[in-house]
Amino acid sequence: MSKVVGDITVSLDGFVTGPDPDLAHGLGRGGDELHRWVTDGDAVDAAVLAETSDATGAVIMGRRVFDFVDGPHGWTDERGYGGPEAGMPPVLVVTRTPPESTRLGERFTFVVDGIGSAVTKAVALAEGRDVVIMGGATVIRGALERGLLDELRLHLAPVLLGAGTPLFDGGSPRVLRQTHVRPSGHATHLSYRVG
Amino acid sequence: MSKVVGDITVSLDGFVTGPDPDLAHGLGRGGDELHRWVTDGDAVDAAVLAETSDATGAVIMGRRVFDFVDGPHGWTDERGYGGPEAGMPPVLVVTRTPPESTRLGERFTFVVDGIGSAVTKAVALAEGRDVVIMGGATVIRGALERGLLDELRLHLAPVLLGAGTPLFDGGSPRVLRQTHVRPSGHATHLSYRVG
Repeated sequence: MSKVVGDITVSLDGFVTGPDPDLAHGLGRGGDELHRWVTDGDAVDAAVLAETSDATGAVIMGRRVFDFVDGPHGWTDERGYGGPEAGMPPVLVVTRTPPESTRLGERFTFVVDGIGSAVTKAVALAEGRDVVIMGGATVIRGALERGLLDELRLHLAPVLLGAGTPLFDGGSPRVLRQTHVRPSGHATHLSYRVG
Repeated sequence: MSKVVGDITVSLDGFVTGPDPDLAHGLGRGGDELHRWVTDGDAVDAAVLAETSDATGAVIMGRRVFDFVDGPHGWTDERGYGGPEAGMPPVLVVTRTPPESTRLGERFTFVVDGIGSAVTKAVALAEGRDVVIMGGATVIRGALERGLLDELRLHLAPVLLGAGTPLFDGGSPRVLRQTHVRPSGHATHLSYRVG
């Protein structure tokens, strides 16, 4: 049975990008510091990435994440997420207006009827492995609010961005269950069971 | 040489109280979940509390925290912070308008000329031990922005409050150094070195 996981890196002050993210700077101004654990990570960070890659059967992303990933500064090889040695799971993009063409080809499925539908389709494709919602914040919040998330994985980066795209923005109060905490030299990898 | 430490519990969505904190509910609606690690903590939580208490030479707090602490639902014994067996360090309260009297007596010094002055006075009282700014958010942010903090200690509670008093609220971007991470059953205790 697939778990549905929201998995995203967040600053200490709760932002998933700095100000003014665009196609050249997907993480906004100062936001590259968020992914120091990915770009300059240590053995713990590498293990977290590898385990996530191994466990992921399907990926869901929102349109702005897709636009960056498929844009000129996005994924640079045919496998992307998880590194060149990993098989690329199917990616479902939640958007009302699919693009007419993509740079990265056939790997993407565009889902026009919302996050609930995207999760259902992703579970069907994931063959029992995890469905990972990799952002943006709106998509993860939408899944959380609709009760679709089993797990929330936050990679807490030791940076204050001051402004940007907040992960949380209101929403229902709820108590989660902290299940795993793995500090690395560049972040703290936190897992929570939802509901 | 005293370290100046901001030490506060924060929700996953960045709040240090829930909505509508008052003298009866210092942590606001739903905010008691923040302090589950204090009220129902395990051995790790107890160790964090004890070590903090041992290391603390002076405490700084803002006026709203003081009003709660000194109010009818606040500290109930002559020692308070750190538990009944711990000696109570001096407490400096940052406020423009000191109260005419206090319930808890002589333990408080009211500092009317700002957080910088409070830190200077606290360092002089701390005898080389830590100066701990225990909140609220405004006082911790003020110390951070003025470059007065050596360390930020966040007790990250596995709860989403949805609304309340945010710990961060804009402020300068900065990269911190993650120095200690201690998960307990009820929170993750995080320490960061500031600039």
